Amino acid sequence: MNRSRCSLNQYTVRQLSLLESADACVKASIPAIGVWRDKLAELGLERASRELQARNLHVSSLCRGGFFPYETPSEKQSREDDNRRAIEEAAAIDAAALVLVCGPAPPGDLARARAQIEEGITMMIPDARAAGVRLAIEPLHPMLVAERSAITTLSEANDLAERLDPPGVVGVIVDAYHVFWDVRVKREIARAGRSIFGYHVSDWVTPNGASDIAASRAMMGDGCIDLHDLSEAVTSAGYDGDVEVEVLNSNLWGTDAAAVTALAMERFERFV
Amino acid sequence: MNRSRCSLNQYTVRQLSLLESADACVKASIPAIGVWRDKLAELGLERASRELQARNLHVSSLCRGGFFPYETPSEKQSREDDNRRAIEEAAAIDAAALVLVCGPAPPGDLARARAQIEEGITMMIPDARAAGVRLAIEPLHPMLVAERSAITTLSEANDLAERLDPPGVVGVIVDAYHVFWDVRVKREIARAGRSIFGYHVSDWVTPNGASDIAASRAMMGDGCIDLHDLSEAVTSAGYDGDVEVEVLNSNLWGTDAAAVTALAMERFERFV
Repeated sequence: MNRSRCSLNQYTVRQLSLLESADACVKASIPAIGVWRDKLAELGLERASRELQARNLHVSSLCRGGFFPYETPSEKQSREDDNRRAIEEAAAIDAAALVLVCGPAPPGDLARARAQIEEGITMMIPDARAAGVRLAIEPLHPMLVAERSAITTLSEANDLAERLDPPGVVGVIVDAYHVFWDVRVKREIARAGRSIFGYHVSDWVTPNGASDIAASRAMMGDGCIDLHDLSEAVTSAGYDGDVEVEVLNSNLWGTDAAAVTALAMERFERFV
Repeated sequence: MNRSRCSLNQYTVRQLSLLESADACVKASIPAIGVWRDKLAELGLERASRELQARNLHVSSLCRGGFFPYETPSEKQSREDDNRRAIEEAAAIDAAALVLVCGPAPPGDLARARAQIEEGITMMIPDARAAGVRLAIEPLHPMLVAERSAITTLSEANDLAERLDPPGVVGVIVDAYHVFWDVRVKREIARAGRSIFGYHVSDWVTPNGASDIAASRAMMGDGCIDLHDLSEAVTSAGYDGDVEVEVLNSNLWGTDAAAVTALAMERFERFV
């Protein structure tokens, strides 16, 4: 795929600040960036907004809202407050979507976690509508069910999005790494259609030696995912937005960011 | 669950030979055992059959046939030959099912792997029927898609079993560790009904520190799976066979097998 469709998720080069990764995008002719909230907070919301505009960088997504399951009323309240702030931040930098990583379940309570996730997203909808922010449910790989997300398939994310707000401010992220293994994935991509609010790419290698189960994605072309096939499915479904390179890999974060960016672009053009 | 329903998969105590693990079952009043083919080969088929009968041990399953995907005709032939032998072995020890671990895909070729898996199981059906051996497709956790099995959900396994031989010698294994994360799991257990040929239990902990991604299961009660809930679903679906304790964990294999067995039984009675 041509890099004119590309967005660099800044955690691919997590060693950089938001300003540094924005400059890396400009230097590599990458027109968009995926922003993380911790990096945004470091720079400050107003300045970040200004600097991104000055570089003419489109924001493909803001990572992340979500983490809905709670044990106590005060936890629930703090999640709600945080998600409200996430919507404000996404609006301020004009992000194409706010990524929702829905959060894990307490032990043995997946059903309750799923109910709380649905309740939590429902609570966000009025604010999201008012702010013009799209909420993108990202199903994560089932490997991460106890640590990051009780929503583990695109089918489940589609069910949720359809129940909550059909079609409207709630949609889904298709992240190749998280969903490629599912025999239903192409049917579910087609079903999501215009509710696809983002498409993320990286690759799957096991065992890959990264120390962190949540940061062990491989560079496109190094693993077993047929990204051309998924890209075609996403395009056929009507998605024509940014394609975000999100290679979360703790091994890459200690290396030279310019080299990582150059490699990512070469691989993007060959394999995506 | 009462241990009168229990079977000990011998890889839970992989440090033991087949005879030693059979004796461990007798000593712990466990009426059944899950047998692995490498251990069976060590003892010899005839002697194994005799020794298991002498101990009045029921064989809940033989692990494993499968690994269908191939690159060359000779690979295809050797898989077929091996699966034919697996059927003979399952018949000789009167195993309640031959477990099919369907095998991984070559990079980028999940669709072809899935077609080859369907073709491979189809080839086995006449022999299985003639030998009175039931073939149990075991969907594995999507984490293992590139290493062990392109069949990653109970839904996919049910689809396959229904297409191939409804209802007949092809069914499924419900292994809690592999399927608990799926929002559809209880619907698919109900759908499988009498085609459930085995129910396996262990637990899910991440990160768990085991060195091998395929051998990192936790003891029941140590993780986040609601086994009572799954047991109820499996029972409601009509399954009244053995419940196999299959805690594949490389950390356990270096420890005292009697202690592992005792702990497994205590946990089985509390958590399953």
